Amino acid sequence: MKSYQELSAQQLREEQEHLYQDYLEFKARDLKLNMARGKPSSEQLDLSMPLLNAIDSSQAMVDSDGTDLRNYGGLTGIKEARALMAQILDVPASNTLVLGNSSLNIMYDTVARSMTHGVMGSTPWNKLDNVRFLCPAPGYDRHFAVTEHFGIELITIPMTTDGPDMDLVTEYVENDESVKGIWCVPKYSNPQGITYSDDTVQRFATLKPAAADFRIYWDNAYVVHDFIEPGDELLNLKVACDAAGNPDIWYMFASTSKITFAGSGISAFASSESNLAYITKQMAYQTIGPDKINQLRHVAFLKDIDGVKAHMRKQAALLAPRFATVLSILDEQLGDLGVGEWTHPKGGYFISFDGLANTAKRTVELAKEAGVTLTGAGATYPYGVDPLDRNIRIAPTYPSVDELATACQLFTICARIAAIEALLA
Amino acid sequence: MKSYQELSAQQLREEQEHLYQDYLEFKARDLKLNMARGKPSSEQLDLSMPLLNAIDSSQAMVDSDGTDLRNYGGLTGIKEARALMAQILDVPASNTLVLGNSSLNIMYDTVARSMTHGVMGSTPWNKLDNVRFLCPAPGYDRHFAVTEHFGIELITIPMTTDGPDMDLVTEYVENDESVKGIWCVPKYSNPQGITYSDDTVQRFATLKPAAADFRIYWDNAYVVHDFIEPGDELLNLKVACDAAGNPDIWYMFASTSKITFAGSGISAFASSESNLAYITKQMAYQTIGPDKINQLRHVAFLKDIDGVKAHMRKQAALLAPRFATVLSILDEQLGDLGVGEWTHPKGGYFISFDGLANTAKRTVELAKEAGVTLTGAGATYPYGVDPLDRNIRIAPTYPSVDELATACQLFTICARIAAIEALLA
Repeated sequence: MKSYQELSAQQLREEQEHLYQDYLEFKARDLKLNMARGKPSSEQLDLSMPLLNAIDSSQAMVDSDGTDLRNYGGLTGIKEARALMAQILDVPASNTLVLGNSSLNIMYDTVARSMTHGVMGSTPWNKLDNVRFLCPAPGYDRHFAVTEHFGIELITIPMTTDGPDMDLVTEYVENDESVKGIWCVPKYSNPQGITYSDDTVQRFATLKPAAADFRIYWDNAYVVHDFIEPGDELLNLKVACDAAGNPDIWYMFASTSKITFAGSGISAFASSESNLAYITKQMAYQTIGPDKINQLRHVAFLKDIDGVKAHMRKQAALLAPRFATVLSILDEQLGDLGVGEWTHPKGGYFISFDGLANTAKRTVELAKEAGVTLTGAGATYPYGVDPLDRNIRIAPTYPSVDELATACQLFTICARIAAIEALLA
Repeated sequence: MKSYQELSAQQLREEQEHLYQDYLEFKARDLKLNMARGKPSSEQLDLSMPLLNAIDSSQAMVDSDGTDLRNYGGLTGIKEARALMAQILDVPASNTLVLGNSSLNIMYDTVARSMTHGVMGSTPWNKLDNVRFLCPAPGYDRHFAVTEHFGIELITIPMTTDGPDMDLVTEYVENDESVKGIWCVPKYSNPQGITYSDDTVQRFATLKPAAADFRIYWDNAYVVHDFIEPGDELLNLKVACDAAGNPDIWYMFASTSKITFAGSGISAFASSESNLAYITKQMAYQTIGPDKINQLRHVAFLKDIDGVKAHMRKQAALLAPRFATVLSILDEQLGDLGVGEWTHPKGGYFISFDGLANTAKRTVELAKEAGVTLTGAGATYPYGVDPLDRNIRIAPTYPSVDELATACQLFTICARIAAIEALLA
């Protein structure tokens, strides 16, 4: 079939009419489907039900030091959980704190502390006239929202297939003292599923920031979340930073939210020991410590990195067919039409779709009217504004394969209608 | 026996010599005891072991609405947990959020949000030249530390047997716009075990603050923590504030840290629906939600306020003999010597001892040298400075009755030595 760009206006109008008939058929079905939410499916969650029985009242609730985990204390997390999360992040346990149920909360707190108290003795950011954060986009809306909430200026950095545009990152970080951080999802990025190349990680590690309090916010949310083997390999940022004489430039975040239960997992914050020493002093004002029993429960269930990988292979068996369903329908229905392009990730939670300019909002709107909810167009960009109105995040994890097939069929019809409208406009 | 004030210098010296012999005997025993920590004992924690089995993998992890509690969401806590914590605080569930494992963390976050974003639209406190907090003292060091950490000026308010000196509180709150809050532990206050009188609560409720963003930080940490029946009755602040046309002036905090497991419990934040609406909008940037599974576990174990009260009666059976041991030794050894006075609480976690002026530090030092750790002198005052150097917080909950008896015997010797040194100085 010819691409839409090759069709005459008359041919496009005919195609549009056909598509609209198909669209109305879908609409008549009164669908209620959702491809917006980056949530595990209930089948995935079922895999973690043994977590609930992993510890019980017949056991002593003590760690390997004999500390009673039912009582106060243990600001940095229990030793066994630090070892586990350190294996997941591939850093030493001494560089790893294990905290509460949400890595987003750690990131928020890290920005909040920097606002009110600065970073390792720097001026608190709320005393500065300008504070900027680099936001590789398309990216994760909740990252951007945290910094926007604190009045930090968001600067869009285009994503390439190797990660953020490192020429632009370097230019900003090395010349603009108001640039204090960059949001990164370095493996299976949200929403594109891109894993940063070795060269990208090396360039991060060798940055020479203008601001001493610049930090890389490395949200390794999908570090063990491959659903196609072999998954992508991400260079170890800590090792690279140490080798480059940049030991304090990195913060890493992760959680088990998409390993065990979303919202009832454990989270990790890794960084240099100097950063952690400074931050734990501040944390001591905030809390007496995290939920150590839930940490013990997770260690009992997941055991070690091999246990985590075995568990994630079971999740992969549920995720791979869902992603394959979406991709095969996109390939089949949109393959050579020239209406957009999309990513083919080996892990993570999303597929990123880029339509023609000025079609994303319209596509989402059409889908919504026919009963299929997609992530709001623009959500993947700072301030919720996609300058070209092209990007749509597709979340295939939560619905069933059948639901996905239906939703995705409809999506392709909407994307084609929106493309024709844009071409005819 | 005569009081020390009635003895001659010579008699005091003789008494001192006797006491020092006794002291050296204790010292020779190489004790390692601790009366510093407001921690539950392991016997208390044992009572909550069934919590670990309260839910298991045979059950569906859903709330009464059928929501899957294993997945993301539920920023305000699950309905059943809100109902439970609302019963504990005696406020409606619609006024109650149930959050993470630490009420201290909620208090910290509440101050932190006020610093960076203000209170219901007020100027963020970090944009103001002066922000002050009233600190009834002796009080809880971690409260004072949170506000000190944010550079807020701490103003000491003397405690009376009815609660904080309300004349002084009223004068500050109604005339000084920079006064933004007051820290209160209204029932079984830390460390005195004082419960605010009805008149005190009424005067709180009818305050007419100079600052629209003034709030009462009502940390009801010991709301169900009676160990002598009948316990103290605290007037309901919410009801009083509503009646006084002051619906937004109060924040309440509580947790199950001293009901189930310290650090692995659930916490509550209650306030007017207007305050909560404003705050939950801010919280949405910080987290996707609390650990709902642990909330379900707590509801399954504690059930309702009757379940809580029955559970707390079991704790009382462990706590009452400990407090009785300390009090009987204080009465017996110090009763008529005029070296200090102490409180006789019916609940909570502490006994407050006020020695003669300039004796608290010395008493703590002597005890430490003989192997008994007490809370640092001064800790119960803002900035860690007790202007008269009199107050010592005694924490009888964690050691065994035998350990307490030994530690307390030594304590009375140290207090007597310190008193004589002060009188002879």
